[in-house]
Amino acid sequence: MKKITIVGAGLAGSLLAVYLSKKGFEVGIYERRPDMRKHNIGGGKSINLALSTRGIHALKEVGLYDEIKKIAIPMFGRMIHTKDGDLNFQRYGKDDSEYINAVSRSELNKSLMDLAEKNSNIKIHFSERCCGIDFEKNEVSFLNDDSGSEKKMKYEILIATDGATSAVRMEMMKRPRFNFSQLYENYGYKELIIPADANGKFRMEVNTLHIWPRGSFMLIALPNLDGSFTCTLFLGYDKSLGRENSFEFLDNEDRVRKFFETNFPDFVNLHPDFSSEFFQNPVGSLMTVKCYPWIVNDNAALLGDASHAIVPFFGQGMNAAFEDCVYLNSCIDKYNGDWAKIFNEYQNLRKVNSDAIADLAQENFIEMRDLVADKRFLLKKKIETELYKKYPDTFVPKYTMVTFMRIPYSVALRRGRIQENILNNLSSDISDVSGLDFNFADKLIKENLDKLM
Amino acid sequence: MKKITIVGAGLAGSLLAVYLSKKGFEVGIYERRPDMRKHNIGGGKSINLALSTRGIHALKEVGLYDEIKKIAIPMFGRMIHTKDGDLNFQRYGKDDSEYINAVSRSELNKSLMDLAEKNSNIKIHFSERCCGIDFEKNEVSFLNDDSGSEKKMKYEILIATDGATSAVRMEMMKRPRFNFSQLYENYGYKELIIPADANGKFRMEVNTLHIWPRGSFMLIALPNLDGSFTCTLFLGYDKSLGRENSFEFLDNEDRVRKFFETNFPDFVNLHPDFSSEFFQNPVGSLMTVKCYPWIVNDNAALLGDASHAIVPFFGQGMNAAFEDCVYLNSCIDKYNGDWAKIFNEYQNLRKVNSDAIADLAQENFIEMRDLVADKRFLLKKKIETELYKKYPDTFVPKYTMVTFMRIPYSVALRRGRIQENILNNLSSDISDVSGLDFNFADKLIKENLDKLM
Repeated sequence: MKKITIVGAGLAGSLLAVYLSKKGFEVGIYERRPDMRKHNIGGGKSINLALSTRGIHALKEVGLYDEIKKIAIPMFGRMIHTKDGDLNFQRYGKDDSEYINAVSRSELNKSLMDLAEKNSNIKIHFSERCCGIDFEKNEVSFLNDDSGSEKKMKYEILIATDGATSAVRMEMMKRPRFNFSQLYENYGYKELIIPADANGKFRMEVNTLHIWPRGSFMLIALPNLDGSFTCTLFLGYDKSLGRENSFEFLDNEDRVRKFFETNFPDFVNLHPDFSSEFFQNPVGSLMTVKCYPWIVNDNAALLGDASHAIVPFFGQGMNAAFEDCVYLNSCIDKYNGDWAKIFNEYQNLRKVNSDAIADLAQENFIEMRDLVADKRFLLKKKIETELYKKYPDTFVPKYTMVTFMRIPYSVALRRGRIQENILNNLSSDISDVSGLDFNFADKLIKENLDKLM
Repeated sequence: MKKITIVGAGLAGSLLAVYLSKKGFEVGIYERRPDMRKHNIGGGKSINLALSTRGIHALKEVGLYDEIKKIAIPMFGRMIHTKDGDLNFQRYGKDDSEYINAVSRSELNKSLMDLAEKNSNIKIHFSERCCGIDFEKNEVSFLNDDSGSEKKMKYEILIATDGATSAVRMEMMKRPRFNFSQLYENYGYKELIIPADANGKFRMEVNTLHIWPRGSFMLIALPNLDGSFTCTLFLGYDKSLGRENSFEFLDNEDRVRKFFETNFPDFVNLHPDFSSEFFQNPVGSLMTVKCYPWIVNDNAALLGDASHAIVPFFGQGMNAAFEDCVYLNSCIDKYNGDWAKIFNEYQNLRKVNSDAIADLAQENFIEMRDLVADKRFLLKKKIETELYKKYPDTFVPKYTMVTFMRIPYSVALRRGRIQENILNNLSSDISDVSGLDFNFADKLIKENLDKLM
């Protein structure tokens, strides 16, 4: 049985190790950073995660969900904050059985590492920076950041889960015919924390994802276990998206204060000290990475963000990476030790779907920052709900397909677009869902029936 | 006056040096390879170049055209070779005054180096491999491949003309928010040489670009000064484009011979020994590179293939790179030593147009390998010629705009698409150009008049 070398002990690497360990593989994980359970690393640049059905399914497969559930906070919908301070709740699913879960990236990562290390055939090596790969000799080099010494080791099977800026992928880029793109959004993000109140309680409704949609920018907030909220401002870097609505413009506390008071007055009340915190945290960037192939010589492969980093607006980055593990695991089951077949089928199954979730995630940014406050959008949502009730197998909301089901992302993307056309058609000349013409809806759905399966 | 450091003494680097030298700048060029005038380097992987109006304009601006003309062979049109051995000539321009020029990449490069070195303020350093840049300290490192020693040097202005796999661009990729994509075609290419005949004469008509269009693949041939033709086979790598029509399939001499005898019988007569040569030459790959920004800290910039590598099917790679020099030169004239403004305007002017020629080049592959043998396409070409005669300012063939004019590529792309629609409209229900409805044409052109300027 081959030994597996995993590069990166992030979320995907830690979970993947558990999967492989359960199959009896010996797994060595090499992580660039020091052990985050012992050292405080980074921070101020994470974006809270939204664990949903695909990720939960993976955690359940390896028996970790019960543990992870303890650090997850259910969110049943979006809470829209208007400029006037009004709150509008938009449910994500059909009822309280459908929800997403706020999880802290670092808490989750620490738990997964703990759970991984409970398996005696998993060993995590920290401060080991991948600094070179010879794919022909099956040799990977690691530079130990503590000792400064470099070691070269043979690998049998190498899986890179080293994230959006993957060092392994950089090595693959030196090979012929490696397709690659990294495209940044014109938006950056900045984290701010709304602390718990004097009694350690949440200052807003806890079981929702809060959004302050403002058209070309937005603020969101997700709850943490300690009563605080991690808030993230998504805003243009420069004046190309509006001169005063940019990180470039917000270069002193006065401007920041005025910007928040104008756009997020209720936030200012909840977090009076935000303007000094604003300058302590860095501006993060948002990138979509696509590449192909993911495999070299049938014994090295990319997985998770290393192969398909996406923007965070559908809350699917981690879920997609965990789903990679689900699929890779089923390929391992199917092809009993034939890694050429395992990796090839894994790539075929996942590439098209990770391209699709990349597109879905970009589309959802527009929805979150702008459309959720739009009347026509809300009407279409209501029509969608009605149609979902009437055609529960045929007309499934895009959000539901992506978040509460495990149907391939590419199918969700395709069906979602057809449904969007139908919703545009049905909403074009009514102002309220009561005016919905069910006969017309029936006709449109029947016309598209083969494409909605 | 700032000293200029150029990385790469290829076509763009050598020409750029001459431009800068004429303005009085001191220029140091650092070239990775040894001096190609003294050493035989590479070969068998070049694709002959097609020098046309944009490139010629640049050479004329610096007074080099008369020299380069001596190594250029005019090509007045395409010579289409059918499977039956029939030859059909398709003129490129309106008459013999409009032609493109076959030039050998290495001959041109050598000439440009010679011409550059005639200027005492240009110095070319060979075997100097760029191996690192500190953009904050304005330091660039070169590894000398002969001595093995590395030197670090300060730069004032750094311009990278180090080609499609630019080392400078790789350094830029390590910086935040650098957008980058490299996408390979599923096609590779292989060069073959048809030698001159026993009397040193050309074995085919010399002043044309020969094409054997075969739908999903093609062979082309361009004349060389010594009576030979450099031929290039463009073919799918693998069975995804047809099992037997792939480099993967052509893995022995029998298969190669059969493939050529079936598809290019007249070529086989001209070059009986092709099948052994086939296995001496490598399969080259075809890539499109886009990136942004092209500038770092107002004192380092990319130019030519380093910033926008394209596929060769419009014969515009070199011409576009030379045009970069034309524009950069005019920005230098305009902003008298203010390099922030110079580079910024250069980038603004060129980025949109290099994106456009990348698209145009990909479109033209389909035209060359497939459409030139298509009846409807030929009819549309005839209609195009008629309309160009009647509306010489408004309806200019796309090929003419790209090849014989210097209007921005982005404008050629836009106008070309509108004209394509008009041609589709006008050709849809006639079988011969004699049936062309000039009144309808007049109406269509008037409707689109504002977009055809």
